[in-house]
Amino acid sequence: MNLEDESYLKNLIVKNEKKILLVVLDGLGDIQGDREGTPLEMAVTPNLDRLARDSSLGFTIPVRMGITPGSGPAHLSLFGYDPLKYQIGRGILEALGLDLEIGEKDLCVRANFATFKDGLIVDRRAGRIPTEKNVELCKKLSEKIKKIDDIEVKIYPGKEHRFVVIFSGEGLSEYIEDVDPQKNNKPPVEVKPKLELIEKLEIKEKLEVEKTVRVVKKFIEASLEVLKDEERANYILMRGFSKKPLIEPFNSRYGLKSCGVAVYPMYRGLARLVGMDVPPPEKETWEGELELIRKFKDSYDFFYLHLKETDKAGEDGNFDAKVSYIEKFDSLIPELLELKFDVMVITGDHSTPSYLSSHSWHPNPVLIYSPYVRKDGMRFTEANCRYGSLGFFYSTSLVPLMLAHSLKLKKFGA
Amino acid sequence: MNLEDESYLKNLIVKNEKKILLVVLDGLGDIQGDREGTPLEMAVTPNLDRLARDSSLGFTIPVRMGITPGSGPAHLSLFGYDPLKYQIGRGILEALGLDLEIGEKDLCVRANFATFKDGLIVDRRAGRIPTEKNVELCKKLSEKIKKIDDIEVKIYPGKEHRFVVIFSGEGLSEYIEDVDPQKNNKPPVEVKPKLELIEKLEIKEKLEVEKTVRVVKKFIEASLEVLKDEERANYILMRGFSKKPLIEPFNSRYGLKSCGVAVYPMYRGLARLVGMDVPPPEKETWEGELELIRKFKDSYDFFYLHLKETDKAGEDGNFDAKVSYIEKFDSLIPELLELKFDVMVITGDHSTPSYLSSHSWHPNPVLIYSPYVRKDGMRFTEANCRYGSLGFFYSTSLVPLMLAHSLKLKKFGA
Repeated sequence: MNLEDESYLKNLIVKNEKKILLVVLDGLGDIQGDREGTPLEMAVTPNLDRLARDSSLGFTIPVRMGITPGSGPAHLSLFGYDPLKYQIGRGILEALGLDLEIGEKDLCVRANFATFKDGLIVDRRAGRIPTEKNVELCKKLSEKIKKIDDIEVKIYPGKEHRFVVIFSGEGLSEYIEDVDPQKNNKPPVEVKPKLELIEKLEIKEKLEVEKTVRVVKKFIEASLEVLKDEERANYILMRGFSKKPLIEPFNSRYGLKSCGVAVYPMYRGLARLVGMDVPPPEKETWEGELELIRKFKDSYDFFYLHLKETDKAGEDGNFDAKVSYIEKFDSLIPELLELKFDVMVITGDHSTPSYLSSHSWHPNPVLIYSPYVRKDGMRFTEANCRYGSLGFFYSTSLVPLMLAHSLKLKKFGA
Repeated sequence: MNLEDESYLKNLIVKNEKKILLVVLDGLGDIQGDREGTPLEMAVTPNLDRLARDSSLGFTIPVRMGITPGSGPAHLSLFGYDPLKYQIGRGILEALGLDLEIGEKDLCVRANFATFKDGLIVDRRAGRIPTEKNVELCKKLSEKIKKIDDIEVKIYPGKEHRFVVIFSGEGLSEYIEDVDPQKNNKPPVEVKPKLELIEKLEIKEKLEVEKTVRVVKKFIEASLEVLKDEERANYILMRGFSKKPLIEPFNSRYGLKSCGVAVYPMYRGLARLVGMDVPPPEKETWEGELELIRKFKDSYDFFYLHLKETDKAGEDGNFDAKVSYIEKFDSLIPELLELKFDVMVITGDHSTPSYLSSHSWHPNPVLIYSPYVRKDGMRFTEANCRYGSLGFFYSTSLVPLMLAHSLKLKKFGA
């Protein structure tokens, strides 16, 4: 259960024709709360039960014991990257959530429209202006501000008061403090470098920080000029300055040709971030996602399939909906089995107990189905995963385990 | 379950009269494959069953999740050395397999006789010459080449085309590339340093590399002169240049006086590598090994007993043979119990499922028998080990657990 440099893995990888499917039922794991059992326990899942009997079960820990992960860290961990080592900035996550492509030279920022009055930010969300207004304002900003010095600027509306700014060009730095007073009725804050870091930086990096501060200042000034006649959205706040993390692509790290299948932009973005191909979904349903896998089955040897709705039900505190989605997933298993993957994993990225209406720290139930597993002969439930052949392990070990079960790893040493 | 510097252990060690027996049934762990159960599950083992009821069960992971270990790393881990930190070179392993003693100043190399024609290595195995021919050629080489400069040379025949060369003396380096074109019908390759390492080395090490390149070149030239009239074995290839790893001896690391009992040279060698005494077997049978333990029982406080045949059956894909060997082991248990060890561990070094006919990544079932265990009250099977009191842990923790159960570790802190 160690988390370390996994470079030794690379020397063990061999290629073969075997194909792997990783199914992520988002937020799958749960607790009983005030119910008789968890959704996995209460759901009627004859197909999953049959499959699980011939599978190994266990639990994965996405970050560390007791740590509740966001979707970004939880997915990085599933993809084999220790989320404490590889951190994804909020600006990047926000941009991924808008389905934007992000390049090496892009600096991504989450921005809000806000209300400024009498020297104070009186409303950090500009009264949650309607999304249409947001779209209109972003269009106006985009038309007026295309470049600051040699840096290209792109502006993308999100929901309500939220938007994303991407600065593109040479020599930008992510070591910039949030330009946000964090509370209402405080004066605006200056654009500043991250002071705790600045002394550790090399000269080149310091120059990048200075340049970025200059560009962001000018951008804010130009924006306020554009917005000056707005009643509510007459100010902007900027947070989560971040660049794409330096990450070895999934394909070269694991010797795989991988494909991400997801409907929601954030998860498509996370798959793209580690270098997976992410074909556009034709139908935004679970059935549509399955169709996509069927279509591309021959072209890839690893598929990541993301199914969002279990997490949504959990976030909504809707236990019964979560049970229903698990039962719906069960009904799709015969189709999944027809695809004849050599290794199939079913798990969550993190737990989302409906009793908590939020992500949680509880380990993820995980199931590996392959001819080479120890068959645990049990239903796939949290209670049974405690007794599974896989034990408890960090999510980062899941890819090595999938490689092992597809016979893609040779012996270590003689 | 982390792997870290274990020097804190040393301060906890106390000596007492208690004696430990570690039984390694090589390749013991298994999966069901197309059978009803694993060999451990299917075997009829009344004695083991009785013992297991009063034992703690669990699973060990030899290297990392999903990693299939060779015998070397698997054993190092059982002996308490993290196999990612302590890697045993192929030359050393080959020498151990020939039952050779290896000193600090020895550089071991695996060598092949090969066929050279028209500027190319046309057969890297010299047509797999018979072992008798190999013995004859090694004798000839040994007589003609006893020393290169100040370095002693020793040559030992293996099977067919394989032999081992040991260079002995001051200032030798293992940072030498394989002198092997790796494929037939390629020209021979030069003796070269490992280039990716050379920049990281200190001056002293660089000089050692230079000296070794010089010695190996001269050795190859001298050998080719000896072999020049051979029809097939007229060339040599050399691989796996390696020295004994710097390893703290088992006895001082754990405060034990230890004895390795094994019939196969590789395992005798691995035990010797960590500094165990390894008395020669009188009879090369399991009964003979037991006799040896009986004979030396009073002289040591730790015995490592290696039983090879379970692994062989697995490698041969012979499920029934593996079951039979487990049943044979069961029949020896009364004798083992008569030896009255205070702690007895029964486990494998790695799994060797007959369904895979090879080593595998599946964790090893492990049993600890002592008056101080939590008694799990179950048969010793893979299915039951999932529920064991010991849980899942790295094999490197097994020695500390044996020390604990023999009351050889005092309290950590007050």
